Amino acid sequence: MDITKTLSGIHLNAALSLPLYLQIVTALTVKIQDCTLPAGSKLPPERELSRLLGVSRTTVINAYSLLEERGLVSTRVGSGTFVSSEPAATGSPSPTMPWEQLFTPGYKAPLSSIMRSIIASPTADDTISMAAGMPDPAFYPVDMIHALLDSRRHSLDLADLGLIATEGYLPLRRSIAAWQSRLGKTASPEQILVVSGSQQGLFLIVKSFIEPRDYVILESPTYLGAIQVLEAAGARLLCLPSAGKLDLEIFEDYLIRYRPKFFYTMSDFQNPTGRVMSLSDRQELIRLAARHRLAIIEDDPYSLLYYGSPPPPSLKQLDTYGGVIHIGTFSKTLFPGLRTGWVHAAAPVINRLAQEKQYVDLHSHNLAQLILHTCLEENALTPHLAKVRREYKNRRNAMAAAIRKYCSPAMDFDLAEGGLYLWGRLTPAISPTELLRQAATLGISFVPGDAFYAHGAASHEIRLCFATHDEERLNEGIRRLGRALAATGATAATSVSPPAAGRPII
Amino acid sequence: MDITKTLSGIHLNAALSLPLYLQIVTALTVKIQDCTLPAGSKLPPERELSRLLGVSRTTVINAYSLLEERGLVSTRVGSGTFVSSEPAATGSPSPTMPWEQLFTPGYKAPLSSIMRSIIASPTADDTISMAAGMPDPAFYPVDMIHALLDSRRHSLDLADLGLIATEGYLPLRRSIAAWQSRLGKTASPEQILVVSGSQQGLFLIVKSFIEPRDYVILESPTYLGAIQVLEAAGARLLCLPSAGKLDLEIFEDYLIRYRPKFFYTMSDFQNPTGRVMSLSDRQELIRLAARHRLAIIEDDPYSLLYYGSPPPPSLKQLDTYGGVIHIGTFSKTLFPGLRTGWVHAAAPVINRLAQEKQYVDLHSHNLAQLILHTCLEENALTPHLAKVRREYKNRRNAMAAAIRKYCSPAMDFDLAEGGLYLWGRLTPAISPTELLRQAATLGISFVPGDAFYAHGAASHEIRLCFATHDEERLNEGIRRLGRALAATGATAATSVSPPAAGRPII
Repeated sequence: MDITKTLSGIHLNAALSLPLYLQIVTALTVKIQDCTLPAGSKLPPERELSRLLGVSRTTVINAYSLLEERGLVSTRVGSGTFVSSEPAATGSPSPTMPWEQLFTPGYKAPLSSIMRSIIASPTADDTISMAAGMPDPAFYPVDMIHALLDSRRHSLDLADLGLIATEGYLPLRRSIAAWQSRLGKTASPEQILVVSGSQQGLFLIVKSFIEPRDYVILESPTYLGAIQVLEAAGARLLCLPSAGKLDLEIFEDYLIRYRPKFFYTMSDFQNPTGRVMSLSDRQELIRLAARHRLAIIEDDPYSLLYYGSPPPPSLKQLDTYGGVIHIGTFSKTLFPGLRTGWVHAAAPVINRLAQEKQYVDLHSHNLAQLILHTCLEENALTPHLAKVRREYKNRRNAMAAAIRKYCSPAMDFDLAEGGLYLWGRLTPAISPTELLRQAATLGISFVPGDAFYAHGAASHEIRLCFATHDEERLNEGIRRLGRALAATGATAATSVSPPAAGRPII
Repeated sequence: MDITKTLSGIHLNAALSLPLYLQIVTALTVKIQDCTLPAGSKLPPERELSRLLGVSRTTVINAYSLLEERGLVSTRVGSGTFVSSEPAATGSPSPTMPWEQLFTPGYKAPLSSIMRSIIASPTADDTISMAAGMPDPAFYPVDMIHALLDSRRHSLDLADLGLIATEGYLPLRRSIAAWQSRLGKTASPEQILVVSGSQQGLFLIVKSFIEPRDYVILESPTYLGAIQVLEAAGARLLCLPSAGKLDLEIFEDYLIRYRPKFFYTMSDFQNPTGRVMSLSDRQELIRLAARHRLAIIEDDPYSLLYYGSPPPPSLKQLDTYGGVIHIGTFSKTLFPGLRTGWVHAAAPVINRLAQEKQYVDLHSHNLAQLILHTCLEENALTPHLAKVRREYKNRRNAMAAAIRKYCSPAMDFDLAEGGLYLWGRLTPAISPTELLRQAATLGISFVPGDAFYAHGAASHEIRLCFATHDEERLNEGIRRLGRALAATGATAATSVSPPAAGRPII
């Protein structure tokens, strides 16, 4: 390769405020990174390059020494300057900064790259993922949203795209309040905070209420995103035993002995179990919480995704003492990329959460808020919900039938009346982790139950999402799961230590 | 009013899972809140309502007692049930929850409602606000964005609207990296984290590095959003004295005596002063920071908004030791509602920030990321930047001329070579707070300099944004400011204690 020709293509501009030596560094860095100058290439001697580019020799010396500092070239005495055989291909400067010493203490459970890769692309490749809690992209109402944007386009007040209040775009706060009131959860705009996805609602609540060593009551199993945020905040987790019915005796005992800051619950179609809290449990829970002035965080991504009758009134609807904080989201009903949810709570809570939110991201993004306001105003959510309820019900039924056909008796489950998941219970001989390994080789995935337990309890359960794929693909996925179950049952005697996997947020 | 007629309009549905008594409560609550049932109205006796609605008397008793618990009605023995004279008009349940006792300790500086209202609507009413750091909504390239969305529409992979990686939409990370590399800041996608506005970048950095009582070096004055986030995290702030030149002697003294976690700086067109750090200061700063392994946070909202020659190479460009963390944003160049910025740093830093971000909001919202990726790919930012540079330069010049005309000698300033602000210095006889009060009565606003100092230093400076209004309106605004200055100078002898105002984020 004619290096001289390659290098003479570099144009320097003395009029720029960027010094010439840095212009040379930039040009050479690009050529090294795109392999125009491959590893091992010998660069021209300083004198030659200075002549070639019409700059002083000092300029070239400065450029070469900066490139060397950055690990992109190395100088061998007597031989010259060479492109490093391991150029920092990512452009990373050499790790002279002791970053690990500067960080605040990390969390116990870094995300496992295995789990992340399983969840990262639930629809992209040939693997049938039943892991992520994702709606089917085929149902994302993109045309509806485009139409809403178009209809809004000419009435758009440009100032609505500027800085807005931390609490949210006021017309959207109004339309969420009106919509919630129609659903029975009497709300006013002052009680609504728009958040960047319900995950942010949860984060802000934890930030506003939890100091290290505060107690919190959780269902067990429960949403692993909640476990993660609470653990990261240093909360101590009081888990209610896993059962169909809320154990209110233990609950009251926790209230009296630990004075917890709040109870985190998904009353409708819980993630991961799909369970619905009974009306009588809800009423008794509210009674107890009111007596003890216990705040309840009711995380509600799924209540509108019911496949029979709607669930009982929410805790927020039954709230007699003003202590229920309700979190909603459009991520499961429309699509996750909107990253828009809301918190519905008493005004003092909204004020405090807004104060925290201001530091986190000033305010949620405006485009999605405009879209969602229009969507609610034009009642566009209702037909969309009717459609996805019908479709997901068919998928749930298809998955259930396939499990009965291919996975009995190694796994059973309860038929969830809504939401996105079936919660499978494996016969004790089968390890979910080992099953996941087998499944991966067969091109399917799911989430092992352990991820949903706070204290690393060993679970013989798995979570299967039935929403992401169509019935045929779900049937094929469960057929493969049946094969994986058979293979794992056969090898179950071989004990396998679980991987040191963290918990993905899903 | 015929209550009976009003109430007979209530339709109950026994087939719903919502119990009848709650259906009644919901219907009555709506009527009370929209004043169909005004305060003081007498509700029918239980027996009568049960007949009217065709439900059992127990159902009505349950409904009335829940309404009473919620403070919406009250029962007077012997008289009947009446709509409360103070129905919780906002729908707030009576404040039986001791929220203030449950919250984590708050911040010292709650937002002042005066300041918030000044900043809230910089373009909406007749007040000429020079307070918020806002681009002019008239320049928001909405048609461009619409065209980009349209061009993308049919090639849209719907999965791109689902859950994506916490680090950001990979095509956008790639196009930001390529764009930054073209600007001289050699970057690879692994070194880019997409964040929900640069404020979030700052928040995540503070969360990753700062524990209570850690030291941080700041310029003084500096961006008040940074002061707020750092104070909230319990950092101890080491301020560099306010001067045109970086005082590197004090800087090194700080490094040696306090071992600070990082230095937060805006090297280009600083907020609020508009200053640019000189190339030699930058080089010396990097040399010092490299020796002490000090991380530098280079917050850069303004470097592309230059009105003469571009600023010198950024600290990130000059970074020899991998310690510079660069924060960028599209909020000032395109529009704030996009809420999309990025952090450019060494891969270990990006990994840690992504871990924190996962808890905060999972990932940034997809629509803006798609739009911005298309914008960079089609080079649409470049002509837009050329336009706003031209326009804002004219506005800066218009504001400067008006200040010379109307405000001399009570105020002087340096002509900023870029960014959005002029930083006015008042003669000592004038209090910025008193000036703001006068200004408000004349229909203009600005930010008093105190807001930009960490330790509540009394400042005789004010920040004026020249980007939000056109030349004519700016001229009128400054003319009024001149009148306010004159009035305040005359009354300056009357000492006014500054309000207990917190700092708005702007």
